[in-house]
Amino acid sequence: MRLSHTLLLLFFPFLVNAQRFVRFISTDNRVYNGDAILPAGTTDAAKSRAARVITGDILGDYKITSQVKSIRKLLAPLPNERVRTVRCVGINYVSHSEETGADVPEWPILFYKPFTALNTPSDPIPITEGYRTQGNFTSKMDYETELVIVIKKTAFNISEDEALDHVLGYSVGHDVSHRGWQVDRGGQPRPQYSMGKGADGWAPWGPAIVSTSIIPDPQTLRLWTKVNGVTQQNETTANMIFGVKQLVAFFSMGITLLPGDVIFTGTPSGVNLGKANPDWLKDGDVVEVGLENVGTCTNVLKYV
Amino acid sequence: MRLSHTLLLLFFPFLVNAQRFVRFISTDNRVYNGDAILPAGTTDAAKSRAARVITGDILGDYKITSQVKSIRKLLAPLPNERVRTVRCVGINYVSHSEETGADVPEWPILFYKPFTALNTPSDPIPITEGYRTQGNFTSKMDYETELVIVIKKTAFNISEDEALDHVLGYSVGHDVSHRGWQVDRGGQPRPQYSMGKGADGWAPWGPAIVSTSIIPDPQTLRLWTKVNGVTQQNETTANMIFGVKQLVAFFSMGITLLPGDVIFTGTPSGVNLGKANPDWLKDGDVVEVGLENVGTCTNVLKYV
Repeated sequence: MRLSHTLLLLFFPFLVNAQRFVRFISTDNRVYNGDAILPAGTTDAAKSRAARVITGDILGDYKITSQVKSIRKLLAPLPNERVRTVRCVGINYVSHSEETGADVPEWPILFYKPFTALNTPSDPIPITEGYRTQGNFTSKMDYETELVIVIKKTAFNISEDEALDHVLGYSVGHDVSHRGWQVDRGGQPRPQYSMGKGADGWAPWGPAIVSTSIIPDPQTLRLWTKVNGVTQQNETTANMIFGVKQLVAFFSMGITLLPGDVIFTGTPSGVNLGKANPDWLKDGDVVEVGLENVGTCTNVLKYV
Repeated sequence: MRLSHTLLLLFFPFLVNAQRFVRFISTDNRVYNGDAILPAGTTDAAKSRAARVITGDILGDYKITSQVKSIRKLLAPLPNERVRTVRCVGINYVSHSEETGADVPEWPILFYKPFTALNTPSDPIPITEGYRTQGNFTSKMDYETELVIVIKKTAFNISEDEALDHVLGYSVGHDVSHRGWQVDRGGQPRPQYSMGKGADGWAPWGPAIVSTSIIPDPQTLRLWTKVNGVTQQNETTANMIFGVKQLVAFFSMGITLLPGDVIFTGTPSGVNLGKANPDWLKDGDVVEVGLENVGTCTNVLKYV
């Protein structure tokens, strides 16, 4: 398969879709789009050290060239400016609804992050002073690992059957969450997702956008979180209450989804919020979020 | 004052800031940016029939030219693509918290609309079939009139004293709301603002961005709603729980606000949600949202 792919690529580069879209800084200090070349024995694009350079627009017409460039640093797969809207789903695993005491929702719970929250698969997650001192509650930083959908084609009022035609591929994302601002601030109505999840850098994602040809069924993937090397979340996307097809179709109800929009699809159990003795994230903690056949993002929390 | 302004404009066009930024289609069917020329006896920019053409970028360097163009149709003051993030405030008038049974918040309640919700000051507000038939609740369309802040300069962790330096001016906005999807859908956590407020066209705004030189104090303005000509909301921005300075400073906590970002600052009492016998908006209803010294947006609800 790999050989035939390479042969196809040599002779008909325009015929082959990219498998793992990455954006990276190469050893020449320039930024490229590429199709990641995986080292043997791994499917984690974060471990790729080289990629075939892609020219053109990965959300439109592009070409995989025969030029191979070294990867010095992986960036977010799309520049922030190309992501017009970041949708997120609340309470989308039964295990997470149970640990947080929320009802199993009858319809998807939608909230947004500003695109300025997006971050690379490796840069620090900045926690500014306001999030450590402002308010009458202590800082309660939490992790959430999620499958991320990337939209490639405009969608409006589409059906579940049509949904996957509008999807470029999948990444893994980290929905960084401050439970003080999200939940504890008090008052009705609550919780208020936005101030607890929208700060700059609070949405690492990547390390690649893995195409729907590699992942024809996104509801079969293991996803996990490790904090300082210790596993805290470990579940499968088979347990999503609303799957990828349902989410894309539902969110297109009277709403135009655009190429480059991303959807964070919710997190399973295992977050601090659900624990009797939470170990809230603090300065220097290293969080790895992982998704099977996609890869990992590894970011350190940093008080700034 | 008007005469001296005109004289200044003739001799030093580059020295004068625009007062009422509008974007419009002229009789030549082309789109222009302009500084609206108000007819005598009104401050409603929606009544302007001509504007001095502005060249350059109204979020950066621009010039008011001496060219005057007729206004055939006013558009949203910024093209949707220039508005990167639409922030909105929930429960920001005591009167609205009382009518809805919500607590008076200790901190601003933030939610987002996608930029695709933005609409012109005069085009229909589309209600697609999903919002009339999907779910186990009836369609409950409601109006909300709000002062809108337009950011002109990047803001990050700024103080209240600095806030107005980052503001280009003010518009009036209509936070179209479907109370079924926002409130009635059931389950905890609730309400879930996003699906009830984010459809395409559910955020008319304009008719102009009125500069901070015309409105040095945004907390003194009457705002109102008329539905089919009958007044339903009528209050003053003096009653905002969190004023413009506080909102801009608070929302910049660890978050980059960008030129072109807009903030809908919440609605006072008088909405259907707060009424014993609500008269939910339906196909053909005409809603006028108005803000003193800024103007009006008048949009018809349309089942599509």
